[in-house]
Amino acid sequence: MRWHAPQKASGSYSCSSNSRNMTTKQELEAMENQISTIQVSSHGETVKSGLSHGGFKTVEKGRNWGWLLSGFISLNILLLGIAIVSGSVFNKIQITSAHLQIFLIFLVILTTIWMIYYKIHTSRVYRAVLYKDTHAGPIWLRGGLVLFGVCSVIMDIFKIIYYVGRMHCDSPVKIAFPVVQALFVIVQTYILWVHAKDCVQIQQIITRCGLMLTLSTNLMVWMTAVTEESLHQTVFPADPSYNASSNGGYKIDVTSQDRAGPSDCKCSHNMCDVFEKAYYYLYPFNIEYSLFASAMAYVMWKNVGRQVDEHHSHSPRFSLWDVLIGPVAGLIVLVAGLATFVVYEVDVSKGDQKKKENALIMHYIMNIVAILLMSITTLIGCIIFRMDKREQVSGKNPTRSLDVGLLVGASLGQFLICYFTIVAVLASGVQGHINGLNLANSILTVIQLCLQNAFLIKGLHREPFKETETSTVFANVMAVRERDPDRRSSSIVPAHTLPIPLTFLRGRLSWKRRILKEICGFLLFCNVILWIMPAFGARPQFDDTVGSDIYVFETWAAIVNIGMPFGIFYRMHSVASLFEVCLTS
Amino acid sequence: MRWHAPQKASGSYSCSSNSRNMTTKQELEAMENQISTIQVSSHGETVKSGLSHGGFKTVEKGRNWGWLLSGFISLNILLLGIAIVSGSVFNKIQITSAHLQIFLIFLVILTTIWMIYYKIHTSRVYRAVLYKDTHAGPIWLRGGLVLFGVCSVIMDIFKIIYYVGRMHCDSPVKIAFPVVQALFVIVQTYILWVHAKDCVQIQQIITRCGLMLTLSTNLMVWMTAVTEESLHQTVFPADPSYNASSNGGYKIDVTSQDRAGPSDCKCSHNMCDVFEKAYYYLYPFNIEYSLFASAMAYVMWKNVGRQVDEHHSHSPRFSLWDVLIGPVAGLIVLVAGLATFVVYEVDVSKGDQKKKENALIMHYIMNIVAILLMSITTLIGCIIFRMDKREQVSGKNPTRSLDVGLLVGASLGQFLICYFTIVAVLASGVQGHINGLNLANSILTVIQLCLQNAFLIKGLHREPFKETETSTVFANVMAVRERDPDRRSSSIVPAHTLPIPLTFLRGRLSWKRRILKEICGFLLFCNVILWIMPAFGARPQFDDTVGSDIYVFETWAAIVNIGMPFGIFYRMHSVASLFEVCLTS
Repeated sequence: MRWHAPQKASGSYSCSSNSRNMTTKQELEAMENQISTIQVSSHGETVKSGLSHGGFKTVEKGRNWGWLLSGFISLNILLLGIAIVSGSVFNKIQITSAHLQIFLIFLVILTTIWMIYYKIHTSRVYRAVLYKDTHAGPIWLRGGLVLFGVCSVIMDIFKIIYYVGRMHCDSPVKIAFPVVQALFVIVQTYILWVHAKDCVQIQQIITRCGLMLTLSTNLMVWMTAVTEESLHQTVFPADPSYNASSNGGYKIDVTSQDRAGPSDCKCSHNMCDVFEKAYYYLYPFNIEYSLFASAMAYVMWKNVGRQVDEHHSHSPRFSLWDVLIGPVAGLIVLVAGLATFVVYEVDVSKGDQKKKENALIMHYIMNIVAILLMSITTLIGCIIFRMDKREQVSGKNPTRSLDVGLLVGASLGQFLICYFTIVAVLASGVQGHINGLNLANSILTVIQLCLQNAFLIKGLHREPFKETETSTVFANVMAVRERDPDRRSSSIVPAHTLPIPLTFLRGRLSWKRRILKEICGFLLFCNVILWIMPAFGARPQFDDTVGSDIYVFETWAAIVNIGMPFGIFYRMHSVASLFEVCLTS
Repeated sequence: MRWHAPQKASGSYSCSSNSRNMTTKQELEAMENQISTIQVSSHGETVKSGLSHGGFKTVEKGRNWGWLLSGFISLNILLLGIAIVSGSVFNKIQITSAHLQIFLIFLVILTTIWMIYYKIHTSRVYRAVLYKDTHAGPIWLRGGLVLFGVCSVIMDIFKIIYYVGRMHCDSPVKIAFPVVQALFVIVQTYILWVHAKDCVQIQQIITRCGLMLTLSTNLMVWMTAVTEESLHQTVFPADPSYNASSNGGYKIDVTSQDRAGPSDCKCSHNMCDVFEKAYYYLYPFNIEYSLFASAMAYVMWKNVGRQVDEHHSHSPRFSLWDVLIGPVAGLIVLVAGLATFVVYEVDVSKGDQKKKENALIMHYIMNIVAILLMSITTLIGCIIFRMDKREQVSGKNPTRSLDVGLLVGASLGQFLICYFTIVAVLASGVQGHINGLNLANSILTVIQLCLQNAFLIKGLHREPFKETETSTVFANVMAVRERDPDRRSSSIVPAHTLPIPLTFLRGRLSWKRRILKEICGFLLFCNVILWIMPAFGARPQFDDTVGSDIYVFETWAAIVNIGMPFGIFYRMHSVASLFEVCLTS
């Protein structure tokens, strides 16, 4: 009898729906309350329910104060950090890089202490972490974290060896910082690997503040690394033969005074140059490590106090044989890109104006071809998304929101460079092949960025493809009923009365899924080459002088040096997102 | 019989809640679907419901594509605009301000056409706007819009007169732009006044794109005005006697070439100087107008496709006699601030180093006293918020989210200047009274900003104080029931069985409400004076040379010129938010 009670209730509802809506709504709100109570008791826990009285939330004590406090801590650390970084760039005498590193050491130590405290506390308290967010810390993110963490530790070791050789003429802080940083990277990688999915319920205020501290520390490390790398890229490009005499306008006023005057300080062992070169090559990995760690800390912070326990971990398996054409075409682009990149780097570094121009033309043509192909395939992907209507995931998911936010945010860097280039080339009157190609390249990049962002946002928001479950049947029932106005107020249609067999639908969609997977595979490799080229030192923005001619050189250098790291991160992040879209489509 | 059907249904639910949770949940999800259908049919319209199948949303066709498209349009306009503005600042020859104005004219005309189309279309189509968002476009925002709109039109008229006098030697675009802008301001103010609350349901993609176009145009106008105003403030401060010779380091390299060379172009009527000075005084109002319009366009954009019809417009009445001490104290601070501001402006402009230092000391002391008092009262306010627990509003409300976002975002400008000052003063070794006062002022401002942000965020998120309604009683019933585990699975408690009379609770909270209102009144006037001083030309950041000594002058000027307009907007916005908190507390 109890089994049938709900059925009966729903029947009586649909009957009364036409008479008194107000009463119905109020009653149903009251029922919603009951659902929340039921859900809580079904977990066997006496946790307070997050949902009560339709729309209003019962606020846990101090929840919002914790949010505010941790937000302000992060804000203040970051702004103070920006001021110190700016000071150390523009004023080398009163604010040296040693001051900045002392600030960083302080932050890093504080964060390490908090992480150790968090580990001890959560392992001691019984049931400290009740819930796990299955979306948080996916394997590619954690894997990337470990990979870049290892590179960062190696970078720190190289740095230590380099600065040990210069100890007699440099501040001891320069050695202390990599030591502390290496320790921090190891502890943090472990903590994030183990705890990335935690939805912390105890000591929420302290945990929130700690996570925001972690986030701020990582962003500060990132900011410092980006600044250092930019100055290095501008003053001494990665290639050793790339010296100041080879190209005009490549040297900016902010000189290498910061690097403790190479002229008057001799290294005590003869490996200094090798280690210096080596650690500068490892910088991009450290930059990515900080961003990965920041993203994971942010998701953990969003998850503090959340009460979810979703167990639909439908890990879709990836088979290489599902797709072929896309990845192969992508690999061809990748190899071609690598070949032209090597030729470009060699030719540009020679200092011969004619060779340099040819190298630039080749680089631009390569880019234009790749981006044109990417745009076309992405457009096809978007059209398929419009055709292949699927449910949108709309549950609260900090990881996904962050993914999309980071994607759009990081693409701004590339957008900025493109638009500045477009305006500069147009203002200069589009003279010569190089300018024309540069303009075409920038316009196409803008289009490609828009399309790829749309494709990824739509792709990440689609329900993953899965075996037909009861809930899907119900959803389809609703869809069928809504199209049929006569049956709107009838009671629920049993699954077996559906007009179309669902298995048939699945079979028909198969070719769309196939094409989507091919597109993702192709775009993935194309994004890899667009990531590798700037990450390993390609700076056509400086080799082509139109930008620095139209704007003041310092402005142009600032735009490129701020925009470029974001562009690199965007391509990297796109690779990860494309992989995810490929799995779920 | 139909009247009692729902009651019966809810009864049968609570009975079965202990036996089979899964079935209950599924059935209730199905019922939720039915509610949505019921709600739709109650409006007598065949609009598709936004809510279906518990948690998942049925996406209206093209809803997300409209979002993406409009977002990309806005992004591209803004980034192209940034590039053109930067070009016109750093390169006067190939990218002149005439180019920028042509771009603006194009945007402004396009937006005006869309707005006229929108007006015609919505007035023609029967029931084009079904829903109104009661939170959107509050009266202070619309009133402010009209006020600033009038000032903007006057500014445009002054500009037209000024440039008519220089027509023989200046581009005709300089006259065309204010003409078009005046027209645009009039049309936009009317449209936003009438349609600010609309939740548009038809032609959603076009409306979204149009609103994003409006937003981008306003932001572009804002950006241009801020840039022009910054250059003007730096090169020629508002006070006429404030010329380049009076103070060192006040002149930056970006000279006034942009203003069509005052040396070689004579005005054809003799009122040019007066009108030029007048229209520069009206710039801040135009800046605020653009921000107000942007905020309203953004809220309308968020509301496209939303289906709300909340009718609890409980406009709380404001009585001047409720509060006395706070506003009076605030007024005293305001008057004292105005007096010191006038003395400061007069003394600084004289160019006498001794007088200038005294003026700076006086200005800093005035600021420190005001900010200290504000910090203390805000802290008391925050403590009262913690004591006086009230429900948090957590329904979807784009206006409130935007309010909070703008508040925190705009405060970043002031934060940035403060932190740069702190680092600069510390790096210079805190020598002399002025530096000490500057440091104290900056640190206190940081504290005050944190406290005020916390106070306003908490205040805006509290449920407004209101008479006890049925819904409140239901909420309290739930609270009571949750605390009483024995009664968890019982059916709904009638309102008259509540343990505490609600009227008693209301009486006890009265003194807290009184203090909160006093605090809001005091903070309101203090924010007004902190808004007036920088808006009318106080720039202690340049009069005190510590910032430009430590950083390069260009960097320091950029920081102050970017941070200051945000700081001014923050104080203005705080005034509006404080007024709202005062009404609802």
